[in-house]
Amino acid sequence: MIIKGNLIDCTDTGTIRIREKSCILLKDKVIFKIYQENMLPSSYKDEKIVDYKDALIFPGLTDMHLHAPQFSFRGLGMDMELLDWLNTYTFPEEAKYKDMDYAKKAYTRFVNSLKKSFTTRAIIFATLHKDATILLMDMLEKSGLRCFVGKVNMDRNSTENLIESTEESVGATNEWLNFCKNRYKNTYPIITPRFIPSCSDKLLKELGKIRGCEYGLQSHLSENPKEVEWVKELCPDSKGYLDAYDKRDCLNQSRFSTVMAHCVYSDEAEMKLLKERDVFVAHCPQSNICLSSGIAPVRKFIDMGIKVGFGSDIAAGYSLNIFNQAVEAIGLSKLYWRYIDKNSRPLELAEVFAMATRVAGSYFGKVGALEEGFEADMSVVDDRVLNDGIDDIKKRVERFLYLSDECSLLAKYVAGEQII
Amino acid sequence: MIIKGNLIDCTDTGTIRIREKSCILLKDKVIFKIYQENMLPSSYKDEKIVDYKDALIFPGLTDMHLHAPQFSFRGLGMDMELLDWLNTYTFPEEAKYKDMDYAKKAYTRFVNSLKKSFTTRAIIFATLHKDATILLMDMLEKSGLRCFVGKVNMDRNSTENLIESTEESVGATNEWLNFCKNRYKNTYPIITPRFIPSCSDKLLKELGKIRGCEYGLQSHLSENPKEVEWVKELCPDSKGYLDAYDKRDCLNQSRFSTVMAHCVYSDEAEMKLLKERDVFVAHCPQSNICLSSGIAPVRKFIDMGIKVGFGSDIAAGYSLNIFNQAVEAIGLSKLYWRYIDKNSRPLELAEVFAMATRVAGSYFGKVGALEEGFEADMSVVDDRVLNDGIDDIKKRVERFLYLSDECSLLAKYVAGEQII
Repeated sequence: MIIKGNLIDCTDTGTIRIREKSCILLKDKVIFKIYQENMLPSSYKDEKIVDYKDALIFPGLTDMHLHAPQFSFRGLGMDMELLDWLNTYTFPEEAKYKDMDYAKKAYTRFVNSLKKSFTTRAIIFATLHKDATILLMDMLEKSGLRCFVGKVNMDRNSTENLIESTEESVGATNEWLNFCKNRYKNTYPIITPRFIPSCSDKLLKELGKIRGCEYGLQSHLSENPKEVEWVKELCPDSKGYLDAYDKRDCLNQSRFSTVMAHCVYSDEAEMKLLKERDVFVAHCPQSNICLSSGIAPVRKFIDMGIKVGFGSDIAAGYSLNIFNQAVEAIGLSKLYWRYIDKNSRPLELAEVFAMATRVAGSYFGKVGALEEGFEADMSVVDDRVLNDGIDDIKKRVERFLYLSDECSLLAKYVAGEQII
Repeated sequence: MIIKGNLIDCTDTGTIRIREKSCILLKDKVIFKIYQENMLPSSYKDEKIVDYKDALIFPGLTDMHLHAPQFSFRGLGMDMELLDWLNTYTFPEEAKYKDMDYAKKAYTRFVNSLKKSFTTRAIIFATLHKDATILLMDMLEKSGLRCFVGKVNMDRNSTENLIESTEESVGATNEWLNFCKNRYKNTYPIITPRFIPSCSDKLLKELGKIRGCEYGLQSHLSENPKEVEWVKELCPDSKGYLDAYDKRDCLNQSRFSTVMAHCVYSDEAEMKLLKERDVFVAHCPQSNICLSSGIAPVRKFIDMGIKVGFGSDIAAGYSLNIFNQAVEAIGLSKLYWRYIDKNSRPLELAEVFAMATRVAGSYFGKVGALEEGFEADMSVVDDRVLNDGIDDIKKRVERFLYLSDECSLLAKYVAGEQII
């Protein structure tokens, strides 16, 4: 199959690349070749062509951090900081996912909305409930999206109705991982200790063992000052928050990397360890604003060669649109420059576009660019209402990135399969 | 006529008021009475009822600061601070409005978009071109929106193709004001010196005279540190930026108040003068992020009793949706608390809702509330997709305020007239 339109992506050197009126040749799920319209070899003249005319075709976006069960209360309860917010809004909501009827209704809404967004890949927290987590994975598998999903582990400092014993947590995790084997083609389990305050040392070490060389691991890191203080008290043996995970065997090398969300308060030592352990940072700017967490030092991460993508962090963030997160990240980096560090150059549009596409996509392999050999994840966008009167395609793209909510999604492909 | 639905507005004590299934009785352009559905007196039973069923009905919003000619490049050129941004992007664009064909095309797009937004009232900068300003006012009058519009004055520190002599500026302003008399029912001229760097002392004093007791005045104040420094140099006689306007007779009492956009760097003395001269502050959070300007001390303004509304500040801000500005303002106030002043309590949802509706609306008179005697400005919103599964109307409203871009506008009334 051949898909035609204006191709917009990011090169591996981080510049926005625009190829007008070009053809993408798909072979199975992968981009086989890209030609300019008038350079298409005659041997392909009989192929089926889907012509999106003047529409813009973007790579699919990767959401590196979001909580599926919290989708039900996004946009609500934005009046607290992290720890109070968890106890007041989040834990009571997540406890409801013991009830499979509730889970089915709520996850159906979540999966439908994620499907309609610009996101094609996501790394997701479920709840501690094994059955509801499997239900969510079944739905995601059916949606055509490609996701990592984690059954959450938490054996301390939670409410009575949302806690496991260490043994239960380990047992359920093993059962869940066994159940997942051979069940899914495109949905992958990921080890998911909630965060250090929710997980005993013993649990973390067991999870590190289970992770082995096979699984990825996701968690939270250095989000809020009070949380960071608490972790210091809980782990007096450790030099810092990430070091505490490290000492409990969570960061060992594996087939899939570690993802740590937030990293607002990571200091130089923590950044070095992030780099050494090849951890992806999921930067969640909207969440960091809404919970008054603060501004992550993203420029420093980039300068140190740490891989940074975006997380919507539903429901501490309220929008599933990762383009919106990218724009918020530029804004926060400007305020960081203004108020915190005049040597920290604000993020540029091309940088955040790269983070949302090929940097975050690399967690999944060759994902996030319109390039030969990459999996064919694409959003086809009608920008005519927004860009009425704008001919320069560079301007159309720039404006789309800021105002994507005013455009419509014409089609969406994940690994070559059209899902919208 | 009677309009029925769920009424959401803000009381004069600043709380969000929700009246489910209620009826608004219109008389001419004003809200005459409001009844609960089942309390509607039988004498009204024969009136025409427009029943919006379970939809949400909000007061119209007021955009206190935006530049109509800049709508053509919103979402573009977000890589500079104020003064460079003006010289690089803004002045060259505004110069194009000498060409009436260009102005007609561009203003048509702007007015159509403003019409489709949640805004019913706006206070607008045009350009220095008298004819294009009249064209814009003609279009706004026809749209049914109610707006103040200013022909911009600028006689120094601009580019060759966007400057007037002092005499030209004063002359054109008088001609324009005379032309406006008796031409419009719902569109009002407002005196509009661009900002102190663009206006000589003589021009400002003349504009103060022209303003007299009849006209409002809008301008920019204390937006960016370099601009503030420059004003200090330009006005060595003055104690501060606002004091410079004051000493040049711009802030005299009149039928319509003064509106000053931004006020990011207003100190205590400037705040006192804002209060004394009864100036409205147009807080433009998105613009202040995009141009790296900083965070305005909105909590202090509110504590001092200064009236604060929101401005989209197109095109330094990119979204016309004033609900989005309100959400950005909450976020900025949280970062202000986190990084600048721990005594500055973040803004609450009810506060920003009040600012967007009845506080800003009061510039126009009794506008911005669903209350007897108020002009009937209303947006009727279909929130079913966003709020699928949410029954509690308080939650529907809270979530709508954060995620209004995911809802659709069913109808819009301005002073009793349906314009969508």
